[in-house]
Parts: sequence; structure tokens; C-alpha cells
Amino acid sequence: MERALAEARAAGARGEVPVGAVVTDAEGQVLAAAGNEVEARRDPSAHAEILALRAAAERLGRKWLPGCTLTVTLEPCPMCAQAASLFRVARVAFGAYDPKSGGVDHGARVFRATSCHHAPEVTGGHREAECAALLQDFFARLRG
Amino acid sequence: MERALAEARAAGARGEVPVGAVVTDAEGQVLAAAGNEVEARRDPSAHAEILALRAAAERLGRKWLPGCTLTVTLEPCPMCAQAASLFRVARVAFGAYDPKSGGVDHGARVFRATSCHHAPEVTGGHREAECAALLQDFFARLRG
Repeated sequence: MERALAEARAAGARGEVPVGAVVTDAEGQVLAAAGNEVEARRDPSAHAEILALRAAAERLGRKWLPGCTLTVTLEPCPMCAQAASLFRVARVAFGAYDPKSGGVDHGARVFRATSCHHAPEVTGGHREAECAALLQDFFARLRG
Repeated sequence: MERALAEARAAGARGEVPVGAVVTDAEGQVLAAAGNEVEARRDPSAHAEILALRAAAERLGRKWLPGCTLTVTLEPCPMCAQAASLFRVARVAFGAYDPKSGGVDHGARVFRATSCHHAPEVTGGHREAECAALLQDFFARLRG
């Protein structure tokens, strides 16, 4: 989560919503890390999770990531949750819960739906206060 | 849907699951069209919808697609449904229903969840038989 937090801070410094994600392999080695790039790419699908998953698969030269863990500072939205399932990661570990837009423990609850054919193991609340504080500070500054 | 079907057929000819998508603007002009590229890119997030949405936003030079329509041959999965919401398209028109993996009228029902803050207008069943036949033929050939 330390690396994901660093990616989130770097994203915030670029004016992006501060969310960071890391994909690690079964040995805990970092395969890819990314921060949110929605504004820089003008691409609402450029969430940190999608970028990290895609980069990890590219690095391994294969489309699935069995045994891998996606660690992210915020509960994934439905798009990113489904992407984690499609990339077949073994685990998703997230920091802050997102009751408004999260799609894992809230809202669409993507992994529990019949449309999900590979549900990763999920744990939330890792360094929750730090992950949430980044977002709260960012939005407080935006509101001036 | 004619253009989306053409993209789906082209995807199938490349060995991809035959799904095609088109983004049109409020005047009905095609902004972007794409077929599934999961195998070619070794990227499970490279669904036709994501590629077409991203290309349309890139073409317009902005991240949202208000007034636009996403037309796709198959009911979007939860990832693509949430992406359509995040890109803020006005409408989603799809061909075949997908009771197994669809996330609009089945499964996660992404647009009806509290995690969805922009729900496009949705219509399904456009040229349903043709769209479904492409997929049925593809999987029948795969199974030999």
C-alpha cells in the first residue's frame, strides 16, 4: 500500500483525483504501478487500476494475472472491479471505502453479481485513514 | 448498428470474440468505431466499447461525450457499462442481450446501482438476431 499511496500522492500533485494502484505478483514483486490519469489523458477510463492492470499484463506478455494482487488506495468503481475480474487477479486489497461510487462493497457490488465469473479475494480498509485523508484534502482544496 | 456489426465481423475474422461498437454524436455522425481487441492487445480491458469511447473522446479532445450514443452489438459488461457512464454518453443502444455476462439488464445492472451517477438512456434488442448469430457461430466454430 505504501507504493500505491505514493502513486496517489503523485496523481494529486498533477491535479488528478489522488488514487494510486499497484499490481504485485505471487512473490510480492511489483509488476506495475500507476496513478489516476483521467485529466492528463482526457480519458475517464484512465483510472489507476485500469492503467496498472494493463501495464502488468503487458509486462508479463499475457492477458491474465493469476496469483497477482491489485492494491489500490480507494475501493474500485464498477468499471475497475470488473476489469480486475477480467484480468483474473487473485486478490484486491483496497484502502478507503467509497460508499458513493465504489462497486465492490457498495453500489453495483460487481464481484457478487451473476455477471462476474471470477471473483478475487477482497480486503478493504488497509491504511484507510491515510488513503481517505488524501482524497478529503484534495476535494477540500478544490472547494477552496 | 450496421457499422457496429461490420466491426464485430472484422473482430471475429481476427480471432476475437465478435463484438463491435460505434460512438455517434448528436447528429448521428460516427466519431469512432472499434471491434474487440482483447487477444491482439493481450488486454482484457480492450473491449470494443472501451476502445470506441476512448477514441471518440480523443477525437473530440475532451473527456465527456454528452449527446453521444454508444451503439454496440452485445449488452455491455459491467466494466463497459460503467465506462459509458463515466464518459457521460446520452444513450446506449445494444443488439444481443447477454444474460451470462451483461451488466446492464443482467448481473450487476450497473446503471441502476447507487454507484452510478450518470445513467444513459438504454435500449436493447437492435438487430438482435444478427448480433447474436455472429457470437453463436463464433463459439460453435471454437468448439469445433
